[in-house]
Amino acid sequence: MSRYACGIGIRILEDKISAYGEGEAFLREYAKWATVPIISMAHDKYHPCQGLADAMGLRAHLGRDFRGKRLLQVWGHGALVRSWCSVQESLLINTRLGMDVTLCYPEGYDLAPEVIAACEENARRAGSRFEITHDQKKAYEGADVVYSRNWMSPQAYKEGQLDKKGEIERAMEYGDWIYDREKMALTNDALFIHPMPVDRGHEVTDEIASGPHSIIYEVAENRLHVQKAIMAFTMGEI
Amino acid sequence: MSRYACGIGIRILEDKISAYGEGEAFLREYAKWATVPIISMAHDKYHPCQGLADAMGLRAHLGRDFRGKRLLQVWGHGALVRSWCSVQESLLINTRLGMDVTLCYPEGYDLAPEVIAACEENARRAGSRFEITHDQKKAYEGADVVYSRNWMSPQAYKEGQLDKKGEIERAMEYGDWIYDREKMALTNDALFIHPMPVDRGHEVTDEIASGPHSIIYEVAENRLHVQKAIMAFTMGEI
Amino acid sequence: MSRYACGIGIRILEDKISAYGEGEAFLREYAKWATVPIISMAHDKYHPCQGLADAMGLRAHLGRDFRGKRLLQVWGHGALVRSWCSVQESLLINTRLGMDVTLCYPEGYDLAPEVIAACEENARRAGSRFEITHDQKKAYEGADVVYSRNWMSPQAYKEGQLDKKGEIERAMEYGDWIYDREKMALTNDALFIHPMPVDRGHEVTDEIASGPHSIIYEVAENRLHVQKAIMAFTMGEI
Repeated sequence: MSRYACGIGIRILEDKISAYGEGEAFLREYAKWATVPIISMAHDKYHPCQGLADAMGLRAHLGRDFRGKRLLQVWGHGALVRSWCSVQESLLINTRLGMDVTLCYPEGYDLAPEVIAACEENARRAGSRFEITHDQKKAYEGADVVYSRNWMSPQAYKEGQLDKKGEIERAMEYGDWIYDREKMALTNDALFIHPMPVDRGHEVTDEIASGPHSIIYEVAENRLHVQKAIMAFTMGEI
Repeated sequence: MSRYACGIGIRILEDKISAYGEGEAFLREYAKWATVPIISMAHDKYHPCQGLADAMGLRAHLGRDFRGKRLLQVWGHGALVRSWCSVQESLLINTRLGMDVTLCYPEGYDLAPEVIAACEENARRAGSRFEITHDQKKAYEGADVVYSRNWMSPQAYKEGQLDKKGEIERAMEYGDWIYDREKMALTNDALFIHPMPVDRGHEVTDEIASGPHSIIYEVAENRLHVQKAIMAFTMGEI
Repeated sequence: MSRYACGIGIRILEDKISAYGEGEAFLREYAKWATVPIISMAHDKYHPCQGLADAMGLRAHLGRDFRGKRLLQVWGHGALVRSWCSVQESLLINTRLGMDVTLCYPEGYDLAPEVIAACEENARRAGSRFEITHDQKKAYEGADVVYSRNWMSPQAYKEGQLDKKGEIERAMEYGDWIYDREKMALTNDALFIHPMPVDRGHEVTDEIASGPHSIIYEVAENRLHVQKAIMAFTMGEI
């Protein structure tokens, strides 16, 4: 493959893997052997292209200095059983860029411990705050950015398979975990971002997704630009 | 989508819609929201790219002035249950360009009334003739161009679905509706055109489709050129 | 098609044909009608792009003059029921370029008589040797290049279908027909080539396929270059 192309983009997540971490290992195995760049187009752990697109979108609205701004990364219910990649990427990049980050989800939806530890370390270095809560009301209060997104539970992979049915049943019990007008009123006129495709009616109401504070299409377009930048940066000299 | 591309081409017809007019409405909904050009690649009502390819082909053989030339647009039998787009487009563009146009089909295969009205108005403005007949013999006499093509009946969509089986049974009863050597003898050495793929043995005999008066491959190539022209015209400044 | 493109590449072999020779006839029918070049991307009889990639790879290691060098073209067992194209192409091009060629296979796996006759004629003209044997030990002795590849028997097509099951059963009886370390010791530190994908564990051991004398990835890359050269040569002036 290295002989045929200037770079290799790999996307592997959700039901294409049999356990959390397998996608990451798969990419690293490619990277070990390839003589051209390997780019993650989203895998079980991280989604670097999305993280850069998010940061580009937030900079356009919040300015280059994220200090003192607060991002709420909140779980949304629904039947999509999403991998953790976009959410973990957002937590990592935004704590690194100095944003105050609140992670909020129902009990039983913990993310990867090593990612949480890295976010705590990022916040410590940046002098900002990183906190985890299960209390939605408290979490929404004063948020400058809301990122509502579904993710699977740590029990999602069972006997080498994604238990999609069990995860959907579990997630659909949390009908109140949706970003709606009432919760919006608690925020600081928060921007709404999402990695797309957005699950209207579950993760967020239609009204907010298409409302004046939503920057989801802008961020979607950013993927084009950041991915071109990544290619220029990693393959421009080949 | 407008953020990802310089234009959007949409093709929607036959069994991809549930009622005549739905494809057109679909395109117009896209056009309402998009900030880039929406181009019809054929939809239930019209097929503008094909109409331009037809006109380009006819100009190459008849010259730029179509006045006094006669096009026979005739229904052909067969099992393909075609949408009305290519046929209606041909009627509209060629009456507009001043050709005398005869539309001939078995009773029960009427096209859209508003298209027929527009053709009558086109002919009135151009000082040319537009007539409808069910008499094949009369229709073929003296034709300069024959465009034999199957189309579905106005009863084709039933309860939100294309009744393909019923349409095939109905159409196959008209075995005489084929352009053949005998009918060719009635014409003025007519050119044969068709939007392709041509249904040999039903719409036209193999002998005529591959014969010296057939310009079907030439017209097929024209699609490349007119579609490039449309893109240059609508997107060239982006 | 000639109106839409600068050239047409066709690949047709294995279970896409119903008898040996049909793919070749199919390509020649296209070539008869097309006004643009027809390029074989592999068909039942020949695989010219692969033959050129092989020769390019061998030249890089053996130098431009193949005289006095010996290629062993040897059958390998396995369940892949390969067409004869790559093997026959290798025999034809390498006898033509003056290599001494030994063809070795179990009884019952004869290739096309007209190809064998052409190889004999090539060798006669080049002053080199072309020989056929069923004795592996003798064949491997002193080989400079080993090309171990599976191919189907002359009985593979039955009643218009590829008898894949019967061929697999037949081929799997010859477990000793694999290029391994023991056979390698008989050669003159032979290069290993293969048209890919290689069937490790059947045609060749993993150890040799990934070993220091294997040039299979290099030859795979060559396909890119020779195919570009073929396009430049045949379409460069269009």
